[in-house]
Amino acid sequence: MKKILNNPADYVDEMLDGLCAAHPESYRRAGESGRVIVRADAPVQGKVGVVSGGGSGHLPTFTGYVGRGLLDACSIGNVFAGPSVGDCVDAMRAADGGAGVLRLYGNYGGDRMNFDMAGELLEMEGMESTTVLVADDIASAPREEKAKRRGVAGLLYAYKIAGAMADRPGATLGDVTAAARKAVEATATIGVALTPCIVPEAGKPTFTIAENEMEMGMGIHGEPGLWRGPLKPADAIVAEMMERLLADTGIGRGERVSVLVNSLGATPHEELYILYRRIAQELADKGITVTFPLVGRYATSMEMAGASVTLFRLDETLESLLRAPAHCPFWSV
Amino acid sequence: MKKILNNPADYVDEMLDGLCAAHPESYRRAGESGRVIVRADAPVQGKVGVVSGGGSGHLPTFTGYVGRGLLDACSIGNVFAGPSVGDCVDAMRAADGGAGVLRLYGNYGGDRMNFDMAGELLEMEGMESTTVLVADDIASAPREEKAKRRGVAGLLYAYKIAGAMADRPGATLGDVTAAARKAVEATATIGVALTPCIVPEAGKPTFTIAENEMEMGMGIHGEPGLWRGPLKPADAIVAEMMERLLADTGIGRGERVSVLVNSLGATPHEELYILYRRIAQELADKGITVTFPLVGRYATSMEMAGASVTLFRLDETLESLLRAPAHCPFWSV
Repeated sequence: MKKILNNPADYVDEMLDGLCAAHPESYRRAGESGRVIVRADAPVQGKVGVVSGGGSGHLPTFTGYVGRGLLDACSIGNVFAGPSVGDCVDAMRAADGGAGVLRLYGNYGGDRMNFDMAGELLEMEGMESTTVLVADDIASAPREEKAKRRGVAGLLYAYKIAGAMADRPGATLGDVTAAARKAVEATATIGVALTPCIVPEAGKPTFTIAENEMEMGMGIHGEPGLWRGPLKPADAIVAEMMERLLADTGIGRGERVSVLVNSLGATPHEELYILYRRIAQELADKGITVTFPLVGRYATSMEMAGASVTLFRLDETLESLLRAPAHCPFWSV
Repeated sequence: MKKILNNPADYVDEMLDGLCAAHPESYRRAGESGRVIVRADAPVQGKVGVVSGGGSGHLPTFTGYVGRGLLDACSIGNVFAGPSVGDCVDAMRAADGGAGVLRLYGNYGGDRMNFDMAGELLEMEGMESTTVLVADDIASAPREEKAKRRGVAGLLYAYKIAGAMADRPGATLGDVTAAARKAVEATATIGVALTPCIVPEAGKPTFTIAENEMEMGMGIHGEPGLWRGPLKPADAIVAEMMERLLADTGIGRGERVSVLVNSLGATPHEELYILYRRIAQELADKGITVTFPLVGRYATSMEMAGASVTLFRLDETLESLLRAPAHCPFWSV
């Protein structure tokens, strides 16, 4: 297992210690278990709180996006395992500035169960909260069953839009919830995996991909994708990803999009730019304008090799929220 | 070969196409070969130009650090191969705002030969230029033979300090050169490699590291390190790295340092923070103050697994230059 760690059981807590030690101006740990990361200045009085949560192993997702104009708090579980109910409760409490709290997270069964329970517990204490699920992975379920889709790299856009709306003076929980819903509606992602990654406590990959193979549409925890076959050239990978994304979303000539080309971990910047080059060419050929491109590591599976492409369909409102100031140690706008 | 690319011979040019397509506000290509990346607004009239160069495969190093308060231009070679003389000349021309040009790059034989030749050619045209070599890798030669050391992740600090000095009103080529020398003197790095990476045109690793092994002090192109042996726990790796860095530099109680914990590529953020946690503890125990920590991917070898730690010894001048505003798509201060 080619990992730099101590006892695998301490992986998450030592990682969170390091994260907060490196960025004390941005993050602090909270919650009974210490598995909640909170904006250093949370709660912001009078502002709608935006809370997320999920498993470890995806940095900067989820915890990394706690910051100004982004998340107020995030509950974090073990590697690839959802946060506990208690941590979800603690995250919501830490984010509560008296104007209600949006629970905004990826569509995974365990996370839903625990966040729902946390919401009910806090409702009894009088906290108003809402839920928006991010479900951008078009390979995880057909278009007709959108509610079954999982949340992947597109979480970033939902965080950004909700966080920006929450920063607008006078924005209500209803406004922030509606903005987050609109962002989710505008987001579509597909990924391709080249290698597995290793969960520290397991110590070995939970699946393998042969030396000359790739898997189109694989999930960020190794969930099965659409097909597995010989590794294709970059331009052919882009062609299939774009065809699937454009067919799914109906984005076409005259529209504006932001594009996120995301490494799942090991795939280097060089390869992401080779992908972006072709994506930009294809979109230009189709009369679609790219603005605000993002290329880098935004949602990873530790050392998995592979990449995902997200299209974020813009209108004036979303573009202005996307361009609003935001800051966390991993991303600044 | 688990890489996302087209024809390996097109790897560098397609990568540069994508880089400039994604960040047109920051970069443009220049030079006869197109293998020069220049600040979109270069040359800045009256400012000392700061130029670097090196092989591809290390993003964000070298090319990525072209930007305000950083480099004005960078010449780039094939993967792990130095830039040509012509590209070095073109980079220096593009950066020349009439106040002279500093050539600031890693201490590698081929790069030196070509940059020296470029400097001589341009001297005949009347351009004043100087050279500062970055030689921060303490594992690459003993302290007594510092001039033989290679440049690795510490390049970032040299770029930052020289770029900040060049931005000061009235700064001369002498001032910028002296600041860069001072930065190099203050920088020490050691790396540890867990896996090799693959040069696209070669198609296979040039060396291997056994499944349970690591190599202390390996260079970013796979240059032999100090020892190879069983993979140690994170805290033991930190203990050895810190012992070597502190012994080499003599940094001790009461001093201030910036620390850069850098992934060589595949090693994820989670593991970098596990390393940083222990580094921060060790430095605190020794009475050394850490300020301005950097954790992430700053100088990579594509998908190599491993990490490097750089200590940058601060005084008031260096700290103020380090904190001066700078911006490129990969790093903002």
